[in-house]
Amino acid sequence: MNTQTLNLPTEQVDIALGERSYGIVIGAGVLDREASYVGLPAAACAVIVTNETVAPLYAQRLAAALTPRYPVIHTVVLPDGESYKTWESLNLIFDALLGHGCDRKTVLFALGGGVVGDMTGFAAASYMRGVPFVQVPTTLLAQVDSSVGGKTAINHPLGKNMIGAFYQPQRVICDLDTLKTLPMRELSAGLAEVIKYGPIADLAFLDWIEANIGALMAREPQALAHAVKRSCEIKALVVGQDERESGLRAILNFGHTFGHAIEAGMGYGHWLHGDAVGCGMVMAARLSQALGLVDQAFVERLTALIRQAGLPTVAPVLDVQDNVGRYLALMRIDKKSEAGEIKFVLIDGTGKAVVGGAPDDVVVAVIEASCAST
Amino acid sequence: MNTQTLNLPTEQVDIALGERSYGIVIGAGVLDREASYVGLPAAACAVIVTNETVAPLYAQRLAAALTPRYPVIHTVVLPDGESYKTWESLNLIFDALLGHGCDRKTVLFALGGGVVGDMTGFAAASYMRGVPFVQVPTTLLAQVDSSVGGKTAINHPLGKNMIGAFYQPQRVICDLDTLKTLPMRELSAGLAEVIKYGPIADLAFLDWIEANIGALMAREPQALAHAVKRSCEIKALVVGQDERESGLRAILNFGHTFGHAIEAGMGYGHWLHGDAVGCGMVMAARLSQALGLVDQAFVERLTALIRQAGLPTVAPVLDVQDNVGRYLALMRIDKKSEAGEIKFVLIDGTGKAVVGGAPDDVVVAVIEASCAST
Repeated sequence: MNTQTLNLPTEQVDIALGERSYGIVIGAGVLDREASYVGLPAAACAVIVTNETVAPLYAQRLAAALTPRYPVIHTVVLPDGESYKTWESLNLIFDALLGHGCDRKTVLFALGGGVVGDMTGFAAASYMRGVPFVQVPTTLLAQVDSSVGGKTAINHPLGKNMIGAFYQPQRVICDLDTLKTLPMRELSAGLAEVIKYGPIADLAFLDWIEANIGALMAREPQALAHAVKRSCEIKALVVGQDERESGLRAILNFGHTFGHAIEAGMGYGHWLHGDAVGCGMVMAARLSQALGLVDQAFVERLTALIRQAGLPTVAPVLDVQDNVGRYLALMRIDKKSEAGEIKFVLIDGTGKAVVGGAPDDVVVAVIEASCAST
Repeated sequence: MNTQTLNLPTEQVDIALGERSYGIVIGAGVLDREASYVGLPAAACAVIVTNETVAPLYAQRLAAALTPRYPVIHTVVLPDGESYKTWESLNLIFDALLGHGCDRKTVLFALGGGVVGDMTGFAAASYMRGVPFVQVPTTLLAQVDSSVGGKTAINHPLGKNMIGAFYQPQRVICDLDTLKTLPMRELSAGLAEVIKYGPIADLAFLDWIEANIGALMAREPQALAHAVKRSCEIKALVVGQDERESGLRAILNFGHTFGHAIEAGMGYGHWLHGDAVGCGMVMAARLSQALGLVDQAFVERLTALIRQAGLPTVAPVLDVQDNVGRYLALMRIDKKSEAGEIKFVLIDGTGKAVVGGAPDDVVVAVIEASCAST
């Protein structure tokens, strides 16, 4: 049992989606607290899905916390990393569920980062056409973004998150203590998604992140607690208005059109998702500037913050023969594309974002400048 | 273009599911009629998913009918048969969609029987987290049952339809003319699902089927038209009350607990789904009798009708060493099972059905009697 809990209150952020509403529990040590699990669906069996990195740290503790509620608890341990976010890994979950004779009341618990959460969520959406699941995110990126809002998916060799479902969890349990064990690179990756919320929705939060970037990088508990809570609040507001991304929700993809191209182009797992989003935000900000939506000072400010968060701000060359062509080809299979037209999330410097297209020559200039800049 | 349309009116049955409501168009020659497709979502691209048996018969005709609405039409041809209702076949659809750069407005058309419909539906549910799809069923089984109600799935080696989604089509287009090309065995398989609706929901319909079984087996157009329409009406009523099978909808699985065990135990594709359901209904009726719910005369009447429809009424031996054990093991992974208890759809002879368990010794006796009977 973890005894080094931080001296912080446990907070709850609610996602309002009618009968699919649920709460996000945020606090230090909440993973071990029975209270965190009260009210979840009863079942003969719970299955913890995690990965080989997280399992030794937290799987036993989660199982202990679930024991009072679930008579039988199985654990499925997947290989770790974005390159394993595939059908083959997903099938390991199905094999285990069927092998253990799990029925359609079985509750799945996703214990880990974004990859575990996305795969477990899609497994829950699809197993016997849908079983309940709970997110227990253990990375900053998962706590502030991917575990919230019901986007689940696996990757396809031709595109990231191309196969999945909108499927909401029963609850999200964010134990801030788990961030203590996070590798530095993953802390930075999570900060990319925290920073994202500023320019698209809340300039005051952007000010706060700038003022506290040192504390965040030093994992100062109060700073992390606020970053997680405010990020979840903003995400809850957006998702509550547009669960299935027919409009507004797409702004949460700021930096992701360029970012997904970087991830896919470099090979999944070579750049972390957060690294690619950090760099992608710089590119999307530059594109917004080139379209006259935002001034250079804002772009420089955002770029400096991304750099302070330990994230790359220079875009990688994806193809030495035809780098721009490769970027464009990869961005065309982004889910926001329509009839071959690439769509970007563009910011205006006042804390608002829109989804729109851009002339090819402007996009090309941004790619060229971003790959060359230092 | 097909010109041999029957002299029958085009009818419509509506599935009332709020914002997910849709119509079932039933008529002769409706596949070729532009009117059948009016009001479907607009898109740059439509993709017809079919199989190698159906493609040469109807794919070009469907493409011709869609041409006025969709600028680009691609066709994906899958191998034919229940044994191909797998992840590998599903991935052929995703490969084609991504290979053609299909965006998230793309409309999929499932042209074929239950396997094509189930796989295309699950592909539509999962591609980019959901694109619209239309069912164009060309078998009797698909027209009266599987294309209606939004159950989509693929098989897993350990169980039938174990991975899937509840995902409603935009429309179902049942062209009665396509039943002319149906192999006799598949006509019988479809009649199994037609017969099903009688004992669970409508004894008057059961009377009608008995009176018209000769006409149905002879593919008399008016008889087939009524069978399709009444079956869809009953299914619409049930699904409208319980879309996600939290209760009532399970009665549509009459004969399916035993039937799925037969299908899985024989190896997918060795018995058609309808054959297995036909035999499974005999077994479920006997179980209902053994539990005192229905009298022997009703069981014999139902068995005789199933036999007249060209369906098997003697259950196959699944394991020469431990046949009963094999049946029980396979039935325990049925989706209706809860905490290891097998659930059956039981009939009472008044046109009503309930879902319930049964003592093991009673189930064992039914299996033994059904495998031995002639």
